[in-house]
Amino acid sequence: MDSPIEGLIAATFTPFHPNGSLYPELIPTLVDRQIDEGVEGFFVGGSTGEGVSMTVNERKMVAEEFVKATDKRIPVIVHVGRDCLHEAQALASHAAEIGADAISAVPPSYFTPSNERVLIDCLKSITDVASSLPFYYYHIPRLTGAAFDMPSFIDLATQKIPSLAGIKYSAFDVDRFQACIDQYGNELKFFYGSDEMFLAGLSVGAHGQVGSTYNYMAPLFLKIREAYQNNDTQLARSLQSKAVQIIHTSIKYKGIPGLKATMRASGIDCGPNRLPLDTLTEEEFKSLEKDLDAIDFSKARKGEI
Amino acid sequence: MDSPIEGLIAATFTPFHPNGSLYPELIPTLVDRQIDEGVEGFFVGGSTGEGVSMTVNERKMVAEEFVKATDKRIPVIVHVGRDCLHEAQALASHAAEIGADAISAVPPSYFTPSNERVLIDCLKSITDVASSLPFYYYHIPRLTGAAFDMPSFIDLATQKIPSLAGIKYSAFDVDRFQACIDQYGNELKFFYGSDEMFLAGLSVGAHGQVGSTYNYMAPLFLKIREAYQNNDTQLARSLQSKAVQIIHTSIKYKGIPGLKATMRASGIDCGPNRLPLDTLTEEEFKSLEKDLDAIDFSKARKGEI
Amino acid sequence: MDSPIEGLIAATFTPFHPNGSLYPELIPTLVDRQIDEGVEGFFVGGSTGEGVSMTVNERKMVAEEFVKATDKRIPVIVHVGRDCLHEAQALASHAAEIGADAISAVPPSYFTPSNERVLIDCLKSITDVASSLPFYYYHIPRLTGAAFDMPSFIDLATQKIPSLAGIKYSAFDVDRFQACIDQYGNELKFFYGSDEMFLAGLSVGAHGQVGSTYNYMAPLFLKIREAYQNNDTQLARSLQSKAVQIIHTSIKYKGIPGLKATMRASGIDCGPNRLPLDTLTEEEFKSLEKDLDAIDFSKARKGEI
Amino acid sequence: MDSPIEGLIAATFTPFHPNGSLYPELIPTLVDRQIDEGVEGFFVGGSTGEGVSMTVNERKMVAEEFVKATDKRIPVIVHVGRDCLHEAQALASHAAEIGADAISAVPPSYFTPSNERVLIDCLKSITDVASSLPFYYYHIPRLTGAAFDMPSFIDLATQKIPSLAGIKYSAFDVDRFQACIDQYGNELKFFYGSDEMFLAGLSVGAHGQVGSTYNYMAPLFLKIREAYQNNDTQLARSLQSKAVQIIHTSIKYKGIPGLKATMRASGIDCGPNRLPLDTLTEEEFKSLEKDLDAIDFSKARKGEI
Repeated sequence: MDSPIEGLIAATFTPFHPNGSLYPELIPTLVDRQIDEGVEGFFVGGSTGEGVSMTVNERKMVAEEFVKATDKRIPVIVHVGRDCLHEAQALASHAAEIGADAISAVPPSYFTPSNERVLIDCLKSITDVASSLPFYYYHIPRLTGAAFDMPSFIDLATQKIPSLAGIKYSAFDVDRFQACIDQYGNELKFFYGSDEMFLAGLSVGAHGQVGSTYNYMAPLFLKIREAYQNNDTQLARSLQSKAVQIIHTSIKYKGIPGLKATMRASGIDCGPNRLPLDTLTEEEFKSLEKDLDAIDFSKARKGEI
Repeated sequence: MDSPIEGLIAATFTPFHPNGSLYPELIPTLVDRQIDEGVEGFFVGGSTGEGVSMTVNERKMVAEEFVKATDKRIPVIVHVGRDCLHEAQALASHAAEIGADAISAVPPSYFTPSNERVLIDCLKSITDVASSLPFYYYHIPRLTGAAFDMPSFIDLATQKIPSLAGIKYSAFDVDRFQACIDQYGNELKFFYGSDEMFLAGLSVGAHGQVGSTYNYMAPLFLKIREAYQNNDTQLARSLQSKAVQIIHTSIKYKGIPGLKATMRASGIDCGPNRLPLDTLTEEEFKSLEKDLDAIDFSKARKGEI
Repeated sequence: MDSPIEGLIAATFTPFHPNGSLYPELIPTLVDRQIDEGVEGFFVGGSTGEGVSMTVNERKMVAEEFVKATDKRIPVIVHVGRDCLHEAQALASHAAEIGADAISAVPPSYFTPSNERVLIDCLKSITDVASSLPFYYYHIPRLTGAAFDMPSFIDLATQKIPSLAGIKYSAFDVDRFQACIDQYGNELKFFYGSDEMFLAGLSVGAHGQVGSTYNYMAPLFLKIREAYQNNDTQLARSLQSKAVQIIHTSIKYKGIPGLKATMRASGIDCGPNRLPLDTLTEEEFKSLEKDLDAIDFSKARKGEI
Repeated sequence: MDSPIEGLIAATFTPFHPNGSLYPELIPTLVDRQIDEGVEGFFVGGSTGEGVSMTVNERKMVAEEFVKATDKRIPVIVHVGRDCLHEAQALASHAAEIGADAISAVPPSYFTPSNERVLIDCLKSITDVASSLPFYYYHIPRLTGAAFDMPSFIDLATQKIPSLAGIKYSAFDVDRFQACIDQYGNELKFFYGSDEMFLAGLSVGAHGQVGSTYNYMAPLFLKIREAYQNNDTQLARSLQSKAVQIIHTSIKYKGIPGLKATMRASGIDCGPNRLPLDTLTEEEFKSLEKDLDAIDFSKARKGEI
């Protein structure tokens, strides 16, 4: 299926209250700031959004809020992957009903699909109930264990899954990502999923990017893209260095929780992470803030460097 | 918490119709045959039971049917682990309401708990809502990635989780299992979780076993236990060899699906596996049956060798 | 090839001077004490012996000293595995010349053999130059990455390697070890390679054991074996618990270096480990000694419990 | 230490006769063609060169031949890494004696260094005997298991290893590679080690590259570099796509052996690989040749596209 979506896509955080309950009222604020800052799409309820840590109803509510708040200004991709495929189907149907622009899914991962055929059967069971929506496979082998070679996967998947529109490619083997683009880039869209390797992805032809740091430093990444498109490789590289510096500073703080805390440092507090993810203590948060200040985060995130 | 449970515990299969929908009507038949054959407890909705592939409601229904059909003849442990801890809590409360004898849980695994404290926080969030039920931690690092050292885990967990009653230990490092027993065997119960190493577990003092093949060859394993208890190490070993031979024969057929198919070969057809697990084709099933016949499965499973 | 070897085999430490140079003069002392304490064979230059950290000439010298000092009182297996197969061949020829009783080898591991055929070609290149000596394949996938299924390996290997006499099985899947014994136990010998699971190995029929702690607590393990052979499963288990306790105490100190330090605590100081293995500081050694005292190591290692 | 070396460095193949013996007479031919084709340095006896599969004397001979044949036209880096550090020292001293321009080493890998300090102690033991030669650490965690974070490693290593001149970075996390360059790029040189991600490495500031395919398609890669330096990102990308296509075609044939066979297809037959690496059969080689023809390898490798 032709993909209507391209560009810089924020893998949104899910806002929680300090007690861990959903805080959907914050979503419009998130959406508006991010659109203001240039984000070109949303990816809702993925890894960053802690989709797997929410109930089915919570996931529906979050998807609904994002679709509503975005109001067609930019596309919204709803992530529906889950160990239980019946629930993934329910989420997929729901995404279609509420007017999401596309869906995406990781495969079940408690039991990793044993081969490509089984993987595709899993995905097909999801896409069949939402066949009108473009589907982006979410390839993140370090979390799912599903380490299939993507060019070979697409060979089979295009025959079985008519709504396949592309891949969110969250692995580091940029050459296989490039092989996908070379072989299927006319029909499908390929989004690179590692923010810290944004420029590497761009250099081999990424059609877009999905990542968590685009929630709070889209302007910086848009400036990298612009430099790249203007063939200013030196500028692109030095801006990417800044992005890498910020990201490494954040993830020293417990990984994903450090990213959510960096969102807070950028001005919007999305609350704690849910277990099994950890959350920074106040002391840790202060230390992170200090580290971010030391590298001019508040200006850099806006591309003002 | 003192554990009321010991002995040979079947990790039950969940029966599905050929179309993949739940087939709870079969559960009483399963329960009766297994109690007849000597099974001493049920472990419901775990890995074998494909808990993660069922909706929350389906899991509740299955738990309910097992509790009802068992009718207190032997204890029922309900597995409630799930990526979403809110759902795990719902399953835990439900287990308490329906009169289950105990609960068990794997930790979330899409995101693996980053350290022991986080793991224990996850488990505590579950046990706090069902504090009257003994809790058995389900340690299966090859599926969850949570590869913590169990003796060290218990040190901390006993302080935080009053209902901790033991561990279902599904890893191969028998020495660490033995260390658990030596250090905590007076207060807690330790069940070994690898059927093919049943005798190894017994030799270091396992209080019980939880496994899928006890669904269809409990008599063989009870005979091994008896031989071991009678200090007949030679008989124990040769019976265990038979068990190993049968298990390896089954798992050559796609792993867990081969075990469910072996259940069918033993006389009760629990239907297909749900995706992402695969299911044997009819041809594969016939081939498995032939292989099982060649090693006298139907007699051996009953201990008639 | 029929194996002339069985029983409790010490994977010997290589003695080094404090400056790291070879200290072969200590070998007779080692040999005598161990034979006195009941060791039934030596495995020289394996993982414990840091074979890979020695030059070819050093390995030859060490092998020679062990063969000479042992003087046929018990069999000596010389480990000849090495990344460079030409050097492994040189070590194998040399072992035959000096009158070793058998050879053993891990496969090359910088590049792991890509399939069973390649693995067997590697081993055959070694055994062909020492075809008169029984050959024991050294299966230790956690160090070599060669994680082949041993029963299937033997199927092929017996056809290509006439001198194959058995396997030193250093993995935790006791059921596959048992399958080897069941299928090939008449022709080949299977030694279990995890001291901390000695009893588990015995319970499924191990013909012998190769391990580092047999250097300093052979009497304890012989007592376990005796208890097992006398069908006293309770005594066997409680002695094995003691062994597990001691081993876990040692390996908390940097792993293998903690084992070499425990040898020192038992009365014979074999010196430091070579890099890349670390060595305990004097302070760490004192702490280890204290920990060992607290669990009655000096008596326990002699089986006096 | 300041690095005298930059640019496109071929990780040379070692030529063997069909019977597996060394064929050093071919080295001048290799050297001349590669210098003619624009290669700017040699990396001898690394993974591609099967250093670990050669005896110490063979490695010395090969190093000597490359140094002699190159005759200072371009720099020669001799790889000296090996499980036995005494042998690595011997190779390092020898490299200094024969006038090599630099040395490099992987850490021992049968036993992986347990922490950064131990890693650095290992490397220091090598560099201390050849302190006049610049040293490049060879970071290839997928083969060595030494998965240390490089920026943090450099912090410590620069204090202990005065001759540290840079890193051959053979991992896919381009962002950590970029962090090395940003933090230490003034004093040290960073070579990217994944040919199929050449452009990604370049885009973040690689000072050079070390790889096996530069043996036979240096002109193509030089053209990519030129395009990149001219800020022609589109051309760079499309040339890199061609490189990726060729590399994937080769490695479908058994991995590294497919690369050596592709060298043969380019006109110089370096003979078989040594075990444990496999070698293509003649039939497989013909099939590879056909596949390469189909993608215009003979022109593309020369940059004629």
